[in-house]
Amino acid sequence: MHILVTNDDGVQAPGLLALAQEMRKLGKVTVMAPDRNWSASGHVKTMDRPLRVREVKLGDGTPALTSDGAPSDCVALALLGVVKEKVDLVVSGINPNANIGHDVTYSGTVTAAMEAAIAGVMGIAVSLDSKPGQSELDYGPAARAAAKIAARALADGLPEGVLLNVNIPSLGDDEFKGIQVTRQGLRVYRDALDERRDPRGRPYYWIGGEFPTGVNEAGTDFGALQGGYISITPLQLDLTAMGALEKLKNWWK
Amino acid sequence: MHILVTNDDGVQAPGLLALAQEMRKLGKVTVMAPDRNWSASGHVKTMDRPLRVREVKLGDGTPALTSDGAPSDCVALALLGVVKEKVDLVVSGINPNANIGHDVTYSGTVTAAMEAAIAGVMGIAVSLDSKPGQSELDYGPAARAAAKIAARALADGLPEGVLLNVNIPSLGDDEFKGIQVTRQGLRVYRDALDERRDPRGRPYYWIGGEFPTGVNEAGTDFGALQGGYISITPLQLDLTAMGALEKLKNWWK
Repeated sequence: MHILVTNDDGVQAPGLLALAQEMRKLGKVTVMAPDRNWSASGHVKTMDRPLRVREVKLGDGTPALTSDGAPSDCVALALLGVVKEKVDLVVSGINPNANIGHDVTYSGTVTAAMEAAIAGVMGIAVSLDSKPGQSELDYGPAARAAAKIAARALADGLPEGVLLNVNIPSLGDDEFKGIQVTRQGLRVYRDALDERRDPRGRPYYWIGGEFPTGVNEAGTDFGALQGGYISITPLQLDLTAMGALEKLKNWWK
Repeated sequence: MHILVTNDDGVQAPGLLALAQEMRKLGKVTVMAPDRNWSASGHVKTMDRPLRVREVKLGDGTPALTSDGAPSDCVALALLGVVKEKVDLVVSGINPNANIGHDVTYSGTVTAAMEAAIAGVMGIAVSLDSKPGQSELDYGPAARAAAKIAARALADGLPEGVLLNVNIPSLGDDEFKGIQVTRQGLRVYRDALDERRDPRGRPYYWIGGEFPTGVNEAGTDFGALQGGYISITPLQLDLTAMGALEKLKNWWK
């Protein structure tokens, strides 16, 4: 099996190294990740400029590829032929923060896995639910949990057009309560406008505010994490609001 | 009613001007759009740098706001308070190309409307299905059709968390076959890797290939456009693949 490992934090991020090391136990691993941080960058297809690909080394001395494109560009480049060997699975992460609720539309980690699904390749996004301000993250337990989930996907396959959004509590290997298959919950953003003045008196704006929380509901990604469970949410590429079709059809009867 | 008009092609794009002019017939319009093109940029939340907001004038001399953020940043900034007056509806466009199938995850036009929905404000994305290579686009008929759809949304409301993805054939006012409420269809991308050498012999890559097509299926966005119909697809923020939940639960029984 051939696994492509990518992320949205940049090729030198510790979460990627931990993930790549565990994935190597399942098969051949190729790493191709952005050369800088693309957090909250969404699903990008870079078509207005050419992209560069360079060889670098990870912290453990193993070779990796890096590109000046977004996470989804890295996946596209790899699957379109920059990586010659057929890829069976794309795993993205480990993101240092959870990607739950509406985060999935912003997340470079998730959209990298989405890009794989669009190309007909299995995709898994992996995020660690660290706490705000938590430093010295230990990605080991999450990487080992991700490897178990990836092994299952490689063995059983995923439904067509479905990717997995995996979120893992920041706990030790023996502290996980288990795995829950969940639906996407509701994120509660507490964004606030932070208006400041530059040295020349002109305004500029930070999108600031408090760290987002979520609605603690059973069966959701956020609910699982709150309970100490690993959350696996299957995501699809079809965003149609099926429940709204009839109402809208009545508008134009 | 107060309508925020934005786009992903930049504040001076002709599609935005046509849209803003028609929306003014429905209520007060504020324009706030990016200062450059953000096509295929996805759902962005810019948190690693501050954003600037400037006043500019549109082609018809009316005032507008522009920011160096992405389309979704423009919507966030406006709704967080850069625009003081409460916004009832965010309309994004008119994009010069259709946003159908998987495009919706990449599209800055659609993700601007998505940002509105996340903030609890109605959002409508509007795109013109021009043909590849078609120049001198006439946005008038599409803008008038968009205004009819926006008027209906303002009158009847939209279900919570639902945005509208509107795609309009490149036809005259009297040539539309009608309106179809559709589901998201399947886009067929024909991306290909275009490897070139720079003057110093080093490789670089374009994500190239043919213009994407779609699967012409009744009831889908692509099918409607092919038949000469205006397509309205309600989109939701919940990407959970409900059909895959049971299969995955069996993995970890």
